[in-house]
Amino acid sequence: MQKSKNVPVPVLRRMPAYLSFVQMLQKQGEKYVSSTRIADYMEIDSTQVTKDLSHTGLTGKTRVGYEVDSFVSVLEDFLGFSRVDSAFLVGAGSLGCALLQDKGLAAFGLRIEAAFDVDKAKIGTKVNDIEVFHIDQLRTMAAERNVVIGIITVPAEHAQNVADLMVAWGIRAIWNFTPARIKVPSHIVVQNTTIYMNLAILFNKLYNQEK
Amino acid sequence: MQKSKNVPVPVLRRMPAYLSFVQMLQKQGEKYVSSTRIADYMEIDSTQVTKDLSHTGLTGKTRVGYEVDSFVSVLEDFLGFSRVDSAFLVGAGSLGCALLQDKGLAAFGLRIEAAFDVDKAKIGTKVNDIEVFHIDQLRTMAAERNVVIGIITVPAEHAQNVADLMVAWGIRAIWNFTPARIKVPSHIVVQNTTIYMNLAILFNKLYNQEK
Repeated sequence: MQKSKNVPVPVLRRMPAYLSFVQMLQKQGEKYVSSTRIADYMEIDSTQVTKDLSHTGLTGKTRVGYEVDSFVSVLEDFLGFSRVDSAFLVGAGSLGCALLQDKGLAAFGLRIEAAFDVDKAKIGTKVNDIEVFHIDQLRTMAAERNVVIGIITVPAEHAQNVADLMVAWGIRAIWNFTPARIKVPSHIVVQNTTIYMNLAILFNKLYNQEK
Repeated sequence: MQKSKNVPVPVLRRMPAYLSFVQMLQKQGEKYVSSTRIADYMEIDSTQVTKDLSHTGLTGKTRVGYEVDSFVSVLEDFLGFSRVDSAFLVGAGSLGCALLQDKGLAAFGLRIEAAFDVDKAKIGTKVNDIEVFHIDQLRTMAAERNVVIGIITVPAEHAQNVADLMVAWGIRAIWNFTPARIKVPSHIVVQNTTIYMNLAILFNKLYNQEK
């Protein structure tokens, strides 16, 4: 419904947590939520919450706050979770299979249409009803179907080749789960998600505390 | 060997990518790498690379740059990847099982000792040789073993209860994969990793481009 504008990344990082909190309240049958309550949950200032939410066009009522049901639907729309986008996933290893099995992704508007790999033992198998094809089939399948998102879960050293293949065949947004940095033309969107990066941060905090 | 100091988070986010790149060069048999080459790969300024690496104590040689082998070992030490830490994982669903199966984590210094769940069908099963126990056993097992890291991969609404249990029984660092924000005493380290957050950012970039 509502098209999201170019919102600062820190705001986009906080919003799924707002949504998750208000969805929990919704399950508990609550009707209204104040910015102060969201702020307490997030451990940030309530003016930050109000400011962040102003990007969505959502407005609260005096004294009672935001209406829970409309909060959830507006944020889902705003974050792109209510619109379904199709994706191809390349690399059906353990992380790749976890993403294929993850019901969360579908709930957040991402439908993985097909997976690709080079391992002959995996070709033709299905994970959560999603078939694994040989990587060579990506060309024709991408041309046939209107898939714009590509997910890369291959070993780091193959990330660039997979990215090149995706871009050549019409993928316009790449979700890169490898620690490798990929080079793409400027009109292609790249989002890097590396869990090991987070592990490095966790270790650093933990070790510093020990001293 | 080298104890990491309190390094800014943006630096810690870049370092695993530096390491991944230089490990790739190491596999290819290269002996030296310059800060300019790393900078080109990362698409950042080479002074940023030099500045980031100064935190590690690593020094390059004039004209040839950093020695590849020592680069890899110094960064692995610095990021805490060469020291092995034990962890408990709570929530053996699809994401939890992916982490249990992930050989990457072990390579980065995290050994998951045991998994916990409430689903009777999962209790007693093994994933990648790691046994799944009933959550009630976490108390005694955490007390017996010296486990300081807890990984939370349960549904968001249970995250806080799991965090409380972990903190009560001696966990000092929590890696939270749920979109929920957890509250912990100030001496506990928390690292939030939510892949849906990244999905929101990807959607936002993609939709804006379409206009």
